[in-house]
This record gives sequence, structure tokens and C-alpha cells, in this order.
Amino acid sequence: MEVAQVLHMNGGVGDLSYATNSRLQSKVISMTMPIAEEAIVNLYCSTFPTTLTIADLGCSSGPNALMPVSQLIEALEKARRKLRKESIEYQVLLNDLPGNDFNTIFKSLPSFLERLKMKIGPDLGPCRVTGVPGSFYGRLFPTHSVHFIHSSYSLHWLSKVPEGLEENKRNIFMAETSPESVLKAYYDQFQKDFSLFLKCRAQELVGGGCMIFTLPGRKSQNPASRECSYTWDLLAVALNDMVSKGKIEVEKLESFNIPKYKPTPTEIEIEVAKEGSFVVDGIRVWDVSSNQFSNNALDGFKSSSDNVAKGIRAIAEPILASHFGDQIMDELFIKYGEIIADRKAKEKPSLVNVTVSLTKPK
Amino acid sequence: MEVAQVLHMNGGVGDLSYATNSRLQSKVISMTMPIAEEAIVNLYCSTFPTTLTIADLGCSSGPNALMPVSQLIEALEKARRKLRKESIEYQVLLNDLPGNDFNTIFKSLPSFLERLKMKIGPDLGPCRVTGVPGSFYGRLFPTHSVHFIHSSYSLHWLSKVPEGLEENKRNIFMAETSPESVLKAYYDQFQKDFSLFLKCRAQELVGGGCMIFTLPGRKSQNPASRECSYTWDLLAVALNDMVSKGKIEVEKLESFNIPKYKPTPTEIEIEVAKEGSFVVDGIRVWDVSSNQFSNNALDGFKSSSDNVAKGIRAIAEPILASHFGDQIMDELFIKYGEIIADRKAKEKPSLVNVTVSLTKPK
Repeated sequence: MEVAQVLHMNGGVGDLSYATNSRLQSKVISMTMPIAEEAIVNLYCSTFPTTLTIADLGCSSGPNALMPVSQLIEALEKARRKLRKESIEYQVLLNDLPGNDFNTIFKSLPSFLERLKMKIGPDLGPCRVTGVPGSFYGRLFPTHSVHFIHSSYSLHWLSKVPEGLEENKRNIFMAETSPESVLKAYYDQFQKDFSLFLKCRAQELVGGGCMIFTLPGRKSQNPASRECSYTWDLLAVALNDMVSKGKIEVEKLESFNIPKYKPTPTEIEIEVAKEGSFVVDGIRVWDVSSNQFSNNALDGFKSSSDNVAKGIRAIAEPILASHFGDQIMDELFIKYGEIIADRKAKEKPSLVNVTVSLTKPK
Repeated sequence: MEVAQVLHMNGGVGDLSYATNSRLQSKVISMTMPIAEEAIVNLYCSTFPTTLTIADLGCSSGPNALMPVSQLIEALEKARRKLRKESIEYQVLLNDLPGNDFNTIFKSLPSFLERLKMKIGPDLGPCRVTGVPGSFYGRLFPTHSVHFIHSSYSLHWLSKVPEGLEENKRNIFMAETSPESVLKAYYDQFQKDFSLFLKCRAQELVGGGCMIFTLPGRKSQNPASRECSYTWDLLAVALNDMVSKGKIEVEKLESFNIPKYKPTPTEIEIEVAKEGSFVVDGIRVWDVSSNQFSNNALDGFKSSSDNVAKGIRAIAEPILASHFGDQIMDELFIKYGEIIADRKAKEKPSLVNVTVSLTKPK
């Protein structure tokens, strides 16, 4: 399976699209945005550039695709006006894998830019948005061309399914029953990928440039803890149910694993230190099961089991369909919804997010 | 009608898509490519840059979207190797209106880049392709950031339907029965648009940068001559037939006009001189009705009337459907095919193309 070719969120704007089922991701962006806003304003105030290039990595499609950029520009414009500086020429680079639905983003651009201009006023400088299709585990932009990089809920996707997962059998991710070799294979792949990611971004950022990213992570030392495998454990239950009904061949299930990793803050810090191009400005861990959030902050997660199933379907359907076939997707996600409904009463899922601020020294 | 929002070629790769019905445009690119190749090689040899930014304006989708860029890079790489210069880092900017089917281009990128690498060899430098949605009658790229601009079969589209076409009645383009005011309105819009186009490109090109574009034009002084209105005259016949059958309201037809203009070489030269940023390196007129082409060169144009109708449908359907509604498109283009079949025996359509090479002095 070539991850770069089959991994993308469900496109369009329909009932099963990512655009319609990404409220959780939207809440996460809102929650972490003050950190990114502070960073971009500091960056601006250190040199007062008149052209500024902002990249969003793994932008996906739907309302979340332009939301971070919009908020970053609003924060910057507020600072610029307060300081009475001249207009900034914005270059916005939206990146995702080539299978992402860029068309839907591009079609929404004229009205997006109009709204931005209305909000900020006539002295908003030109704001040019381009689409950059490609894997962020490789170079995306010209050398020393980007000032600020943002990424939310993307960096947990690995460049490929780790090698050596043969013993993971009926699991599709690291689970309590996964052997040690499986955990090691996942961690090795994370290290390789994340280090390459840092190296590429260091080449692309200008000196003094910043990068802020948020990804689902974990606090437990054990990568197979329920804390981070909950959602995928339940999907594995649904897939195993399909196997027992003869709808999926057992070999097909045993050869499938999800290419993602949820690191601890320390695992991230270790890679940043090893790679050596960046200074860590801060790492923040958000524990969704604690009370750091308002009651409404996790509507998307705590909502009905049907909505949760749709949310996961919007993310995972292309990658699942490419392996198991389109035909069984409806049945699989009905079953998955039922399993979630059943478990919700008994378990309290937790969700840990990690936000990292890095600067590339001048 | 907002042209920038409704004008785009038929997307996807199906039977009625532009991807499947753009052989004529492909032939035109092939025919004019030696001029563009010579220009880009000269540009390269004047400064031997190690990073080179190439833009294609109105790239559309389908095989033609990446064809010019591919051929330009091949020509450059041949020159580079001959001179034993170091690898070039390519930045490729594909522009079209936001409604263009960028998804299909992006999905084809991984295999395109693989083929290019196979063809050229391991010393091909990085080649990054990005999508730039927007109207070329406005700024698209950062100031002084582009080395070479190519455009084929795009610049004849105006930014909007000219104002003051009320008297064009049953015509949909400049026709023999169009009053003088209609011809003037079209020419005025061409002048405004083309001048703005030149101004924007001059801001974006580096000093010494080049721009080569080809568009359907005319040789006759009369913009309403059959030479350039043939295709649209026949479409007007089909639309009038639909009116007489009660399928289209007469007011609907009378308020529709195609936003395009086919200039003479002199009209282009006048605007270039007035705008003042560019030096004309050459203008070449290709008359398809003469024998400058091989017998097979116009397969796409001389092919069956059904194919011609499909070719025009791939270009004009979105703009027609936005005005007349989707429902009548099948019937309209069946009628159009019949009209073309009938006329083909009696008339010999001509097709004039104009290729212009410009340089922005250093």
C-alpha cells in the first residue's frame, strides 16, 4: 500500500465527507490557535517583513482547510495595525497529499478572500493562496522560502505502514495484544519519518522562521495503552466481526495496519534534539478527559456514536476501501457505530493532544 | 455572470471531459513548442540559474495540463547536460480559474514526476509542482518570482462578458449581423484585459524573464469575419433552433454572449507597446487552412462532426450550463453536431493561431 496515494480524507461536501465530519479537528484548531497566533505575531514583530509566506501542512478540505490561515492572518493584521506598519503581501501554501480534495478548497477561495477583506478592511494586502500537493515527508517548498509553518492533526500519519508487523494479526494498530516487535516497528517508523520531516522543514524555513504543530499524542509510556488505541481497537473489533461473518478474508485483515503513531512529548523532544535544526519554544499537552475544556468543546467527540463513526469514516474510508474494497464500507461503519454505542456507556475515551512550537534559529 | 466562477473546462476523465476532448489543443501545443523551447534555453544560457520557476497559465486539466512544462524541462535539461552545468531546482506553477479540475492533475503528479525522472535521468533536480487558482487578469505570483511564463489557448478568454452587447440579439459572439457597437464593446474589453494581463505578468517576472503565449486569433481586420466566428456561429444556430422549439426562452438567448476575443497580431502588438513593460521577440501566425501543417496535424479539428461537437462541449458546457441550465445540454450538443455535419461538406473552416514571444528587459 502506497500511503501517499491512498491516504486522504473523504472529499466533497456530502454527508460522509471530511468537510461535514471534522468538528473535532476544528475544535482542536480553535483550542491551540492562541499559541500559533502568539508565535506568528512575535515572528512578525522581530523583523516586520512586508511579504510573509505561511504554509499549512495536511490542510485537508472543508472548513478546516482555510481556518488556521484565516486566524493567523487576522492576528497578524491586528498587530500590524496597532503598530501602524504597512500592508503585508501574504503567500499562503496549502499542502496535502495529491489525493486530497483541493478542488473544493479552490472553489471556496473567492468567497473566502472576500470575507477576509470584509473582516480586516481595505488595507489588507494581497493574499495569494496556492495548493502544494505532496508528502511532507519530503521537500515541498523552495529553500529558505517559508516564514511560518502550521499543521494540525496531520503529523500522526506515518509515511508508510511500518515493516515487520506480521505478528500484529487481528489488530490494526498497536493494541494491548500486540507483541513488542510491533511496538518497536511503529516507533522506528515514527523516528525516521519525524526526523525527515524536521530536516525538510528546516531547509524550507527562513532563519528565525517558526513551526507550530498539533497532533494526537499520548501521556502513557506504553504506545499500546487504551489511551491512544481506543478508536482503532474498536474499528478492529468491527473488522473482526466482518471476518467472522465471512465478509472479509482473515488474511486481508491480518495484512492491514493503520500507518499512524501517537508520540509522547518526550519522544518528540528526543527527535527534535537529535535532528538539531530547531529550538523548542514550548510543548503543551492537552488532555481532553480532564477539565481543561469547556463542556461544549468536544461536541464532535462526545456526540452520538453515529457521528463518531462518521468522523472516523471521513478520515479512514479511503485507506480502508483501498485495502478491503468499497463494497463493505457501509456495513463496516454501521457495525462500528453499534460497537461505539455499546462501549460509550462503559468506557470514557480520552484524547491527548500535543502542541509543539519550534523556531529555526537565525 | 461571473466568468471567473463559471468558466472552466469539463473536469474528470470521462467521455465529455476536456481531458478526453482536447486533442486539437494538444496539437497546438506541440506545434508551437519549439518556439517556447528555444526561448527557455536562451533564458537559461544567459544566466545559468540553479533554481528556475516556470508558470503555465490556464493549464486546464487532462494530458495538456503538464505537457508544456514537461517539454520545457526536457529541452532545458538537454541544454544543461550539453553544457555540463549543475542540476536545476524547478518550481512549476500551474494556474487556472478556481473551478478548474486541479484534483485530476494533482493525482497524476506522482506518476508524471516518475516518468520525467525516467526520461531525463537521475541528475534531474527537484521538480515541485503547485496549483495556483485564480484569474490571470490579476496578480497570481509574488513580485519578481517567475522566470518563464507559458500559456496556450487561454488568453482569448476575456475577464468578463463585455458591457453593451444588448444589440447582439440572436448572436452569441461577434457575427456578420452584429452591429458596430458590439464589435467595439468586445475590442474595448480585450484592450482592458490584455493590458492588465501584461502589467501583472511584468510585476511577477524577473528581469530578463520571458513569456510565450499562443491563442486563437485572426488575420482579417474584421473581428466578425467567418474566420473567427465559425464555431460560435454554428452554436448560435443550434441555440436559435432550441428557441424555435420552445426549449430556450428568447430573452435567455438574447442575454447570452461568449466572453472571448480573437485578436490580430497587430492588436496584440499595439497593447504590448502601450503597456510598455515588454519587448516583442517575435509574433508568428499559424494558418491552419494553409499547408503549414502535416495532414494529420489537425485530426482533432477535422475529425467527425461528433468529435468537434464534443470538443466544443468540453470547453463551453460549464459556461452554457450556468446560463441555460444543465437539462438542455445533451439536446443542444446533438443538434450542434448535426449542424456541423451538414456544414462541413459545404464550408472549409479556418483556424488562425497567434504565438507571441515577449521578454521583460533586465
